[in-house]
Amino acid sequence: MSCSASRVIDVPALVEQIRAGRPRGVARGISLIEQGHHAARDVLAGLTERNGHAHVVGLTGPPGVGKSTTTNAIVRELRSRGRVVGVLAVDPSSPFSGGALLGDRIRMEEHATDAGVFLRSMASRGHLGGVAAATTQAVRVMEAAGCDVVLIETVGVGQSEVEVAALADTTVVLLAPGLGDGIQAAKAGILEIGDVFVVNKADRDGADNTVRDLRHMIQMSDRSEPGLWRPPVLKATALSSDGLEAVVDAVADHRIWLERTGALAERRRDRTRAEVLALALAAMADELEHDHARLDAAVSSVVEGSADASSAAADLVERFRRAREGSP
Amino acid sequence: MSCSASRVIDVPALVEQIRAGRPRGVARGISLIEQGHHAARDVLAGLTERNGHAHVVGLTGPPGVGKSTTTNAIVRELRSRGRVVGVLAVDPSSPFSGGALLGDRIRMEEHATDAGVFLRSMASRGHLGGVAAATTQAVRVMEAAGCDVVLIETVGVGQSEVEVAALADTTVVLLAPGLGDGIQAAKAGILEIGDVFVVNKADRDGADNTVRDLRHMIQMSDRSEPGLWRPPVLKATALSSDGLEAVVDAVADHRIWLERTGALAERRRDRTRAEVLALALAAMADELEHDHARLDAAVSSVVEGSADASSAAADLVERFRRAREGSP
Repeated sequence: MSCSASRVIDVPALVEQIRAGRPRGVARGISLIEQGHHAARDVLAGLTERNGHAHVVGLTGPPGVGKSTTTNAIVRELRSRGRVVGVLAVDPSSPFSGGALLGDRIRMEEHATDAGVFLRSMASRGHLGGVAAATTQAVRVMEAAGCDVVLIETVGVGQSEVEVAALADTTVVLLAPGLGDGIQAAKAGILEIGDVFVVNKADRDGADNTVRDLRHMIQMSDRSEPGLWRPPVLKATALSSDGLEAVVDAVADHRIWLERTGALAERRRDRTRAEVLALALAAMADELEHDHARLDAAVSSVVEGSADASSAAADLVERFRRAREGSP
Repeated sequence: MSCSASRVIDVPALVEQIRAGRPRGVARGISLIEQGHHAARDVLAGLTERNGHAHVVGLTGPPGVGKSTTTNAIVRELRSRGRVVGVLAVDPSSPFSGGALLGDRIRMEEHATDAGVFLRSMASRGHLGGVAAATTQAVRVMEAAGCDVVLIETVGVGQSEVEVAALADTTVVLLAPGLGDGIQAAKAGILEIGDVFVVNKADRDGADNTVRDLRHMIQMSDRSEPGLWRPPVLKATALSSDGLEAVVDAVADHRIWLERTGALAERRRDRTRAEVLALALAAMADELEHDHARLDAAVSSVVEGSADASSAAADLVERFRRAREGSP
């Protein structure tokens, strides 16, 4: 997977820009990751000792609950506490790029000129290593740029969104009254991943019912076992920032709990494990897919019935082992 | 990835059972695939020359459009034409297994004692090679058992569901009036994959509008270019089987079109390519994940900051090449 275009990128200068917290450097670094550019690896290698201090916060929930408004309000609250904040808006499962996110970004204009806020949308379907690895790497760039908190906002509630949200140290699950409520949350699997639940649009009818339902579902689940973090269920109205102080407090409390119990180191180790595995597999996939002659022969043998798919796959793996790669 | 338990499975007998169209043999074969059991490979190897004749039909659509009722009605119509039918109900993205599908299966009881119908739910998250490879393999088993048509019914409309539906030769997209209609379809990416569109619950208000919207969207899209298959938009009421004859006719017409244009061979080649790649990568992932010592060392180097994730991944790949596997 060598890339001759990498020569035009001045890696040490880019690393320096990122470490100095320059927004353009951060944007460029994340673009390289998104493109699966070879230079991304060198840039990330230059940032390792700056990694590991930021609090990574995932934010997810069904469409229509006000995710971007809430992200905006959380950023505002964090800024009032003097924290440097990164925001990654990730749409892992949409087959289309951009559209909806662009609209959301307009609402973030409030922070666009604030040097203490880094914003970035990622449309990274097809990225080498998958959206999870790309997101983890983008977090590393924001961390190195000096972010104290990195918010990962996912769009949608599919399994991939849940997986991305679960990359965080702390996951905030947003719900709103009248969206199917608790049962929808359970179906989407977000009841399992939330560390802090926020019922947004709390001024609407039914907010108290949604809070009660959620608390009840948490009580009934194995999340109420002693020794575990008991996820709080909070009410908020992101549009007016009502209740956002308590949300940011709960997120900070969870971080303290993670550190005290050793769960933080464990979560980060798991995340790194998944990242390294994804990158290794992506490199393997890249090599397999690009050796067209070998792959076509394997496919033909199955199509013509002279081999079954598993044997053809085993043969591909064996040939992969025997192949010697050139310089990376 | 050897599995000592494979000794207790009499592969030749199981292959014989499947080829004889015995329901228990088919169920057992698909279970082995679902479990990622080593014997599945040998079973599939025994079925290769029976592969390739069945018409693989995907059925997808948003929740609430009546997918299982429609599947049921399609099966009834196909049976009245003397076709042997397999039904695979796949839920690729739910983090939970079983539940909803069980309810659906009860409605299939009509066909439960019919020797010409094979039913199977797959809850194959985490399956080696992914849900797509598992589904393709389960189709091979049903084909070998003598199915003329294999219906793949997906639950939900996430990206994974779209991918599974796209494994088929012919994809039927179900919609219903008042479910957000065309715009929802476009968002979910199902406008691109449907070969036959069916507006179910046609007796409801708004059915004609939904049909008109869909036809309009197809007309506006690049699917209307000359030489391409022009997806029909049909009305049906699956509960009373109204309109199902026309649906099954359209599905059969699409198959004829696929054969005439050579697109069938191309689709099947693409499917096989994806399957072989997925299986090869799964075998690699399996080996990487199970070499705990090597993986833990790589993860530690990243966590401790002595390596970046990409370098650690590259090192894992290099060690994979150098490792010699024992007998499979």
